[in-house]
Amino acid sequence: MAPTIGVFDSGFGGLTVLRALIERLPGVRFAFLGDTARLPYGSKSRRTIARYAAQSAQFLVREQGAEFLVIACNTASALALDAIQDAVPVPVLGVIEPGAAAARAASVTGDALVVATEATVRSHAYTAACNAHGLRAIEKACPLLVPLVEEGWTDHPVTGEVIGIYLNELRAEAAAKGMNPDTLVLGCTHYPLLRRLFEGAVKPGAKVIDSAESVAQAAVRLFNGNSAQPAADSAAQTEICCFATDSVEKFERLGSRFLGRPVGQVELIDLGG
Amino acid sequence: MAPTIGVFDSGFGGLTVLRALIERLPGVRFAFLGDTARLPYGSKSRRTIARYAAQSAQFLVREQGAEFLVIACNTASALALDAIQDAVPVPVLGVIEPGAAAARAASVTGDALVVATEATVRSHAYTAACNAHGLRAIEKACPLLVPLVEEGWTDHPVTGEVIGIYLNELRAEAAAKGMNPDTLVLGCTHYPLLRRLFEGAVKPGAKVIDSAESVAQAAVRLFNGNSAQPAADSAAQTEICCFATDSVEKFERLGSRFLGRPVGQVELIDLGG
Repeated sequence: MAPTIGVFDSGFGGLTVLRALIERLPGVRFAFLGDTARLPYGSKSRRTIARYAAQSAQFLVREQGAEFLVIACNTASALALDAIQDAVPVPVLGVIEPGAAAARAASVTGDALVVATEATVRSHAYTAACNAHGLRAIEKACPLLVPLVEEGWTDHPVTGEVIGIYLNELRAEAAAKGMNPDTLVLGCTHYPLLRRLFEGAVKPGAKVIDSAESVAQAAVRLFNGNSAQPAADSAAQTEICCFATDSVEKFERLGSRFLGRPVGQVELIDLGG
Repeated sequence: MAPTIGVFDSGFGGLTVLRALIERLPGVRFAFLGDTARLPYGSKSRRTIARYAAQSAQFLVREQGAEFLVIACNTASALALDAIQDAVPVPVLGVIEPGAAAARAASVTGDALVVATEATVRSHAYTAACNAHGLRAIEKACPLLVPLVEEGWTDHPVTGEVIGIYLNELRAEAAAKGMNPDTLVLGCTHYPLLRRLFEGAVKPGAKVIDSAESVAQAAVRLFNGNSAQPAADSAAQTEICCFATDSVEKFERLGSRFLGRPVGQVELIDLGG
């Protein structure tokens, strides 16, 4: 039987991570859960996020048999990785550490910018992870970007303008601290859909790190190393099962933009609450 | 003892309604609940919204002794007014019907535009309420406006641009249907903070209906008529108690913009889930 990898997000932004995983791990069964009834996590407290994320992780492990979990949600990775690891008996990979490691590898100046949701920034998880790699980082919450992506304005002049305003403010802050950033980390799984606009807004030569790509690369290494199952059969069919706690219609309608293919039928589940 | 009016919203946008109520009903005790742990309701399903709203209404009646409820949330009024009325034994006033009545009174052409959240629009509650008053209405979801208000961009050129785009699309739809709208209903309690931008974006002579004002006027009539208590003593001190299910810090920080005065200390409560 194909091994199962559980992928969790508060919404469907994490489908950008699932997309990157599918490309790298053929023949695997993926169970994706979007806790859409309770999104966005980005504006909620640590206590609430930890409770929601632990319930979601338990669903993927207990009900779906996941033997490895990827937390495809920056906010949950930043605020609840410990709570999730305590809640389930399988390896759990968050999205922050791989993003920080990729930024360290990309940066020459040793200074990085991070854009993310309010709660991710408030946690300073990226700064801590970057510092642990010897990289200085400065973070900014960009609360308008998720709504702009969900409105479908991924290539809209207004979105370009908003990104320009946020990056100018962030660069001014960095300059005031004597930093010389050459790397920008997209610390939210919605932001890969804005990659083109971000690449147009950074200084020439600056690198844009997509945390969805980074976590998928790390997951491939960890999954192949940790799995007690035989390695996935690359000739086998990849299976994708999507679950949501609400708004299945919205998930099915918007999800394909993130996954890059139709998400198929999404099953509505109830985690209580 | 002063009578208690319960005011409920999914977040703190409903503080614009509370502000309008305070101005009109001195000497009353107001208990305001923002279900901030589970906001925004606007993107969730009817079933989920009804469950959350009924729990919130029960808190205000059972725990806070409210003898009258104002649902200061367009989404909950549109999708869950029946469920709330079933859940509590006190009169419940939603925000939709007073807004529609005010639009009917304001319009000369008999055609109105309505801007609101996605779930409010999907419910077509405003169209139904306007039609019942003999007014034609056409609605548009404007999902970027709540995030723009919460980012504090209530007077920002980007917000003006977004409002212009939304209204142009809506007017084009109205024209295609042969309508000649002269009235715009702000069908979300966040939108009164954008009133100036909306007034600058409508055609000269068009009227902007603020549903917060409309529901407060209707509440004054109903409360004074329905209350079994003696009429509120206008010389008595108005008392305001605010409760939230999460993000008390954010509530306290942003709430004063909506209430027009400091919200004071906000008490964190747990409705479960």
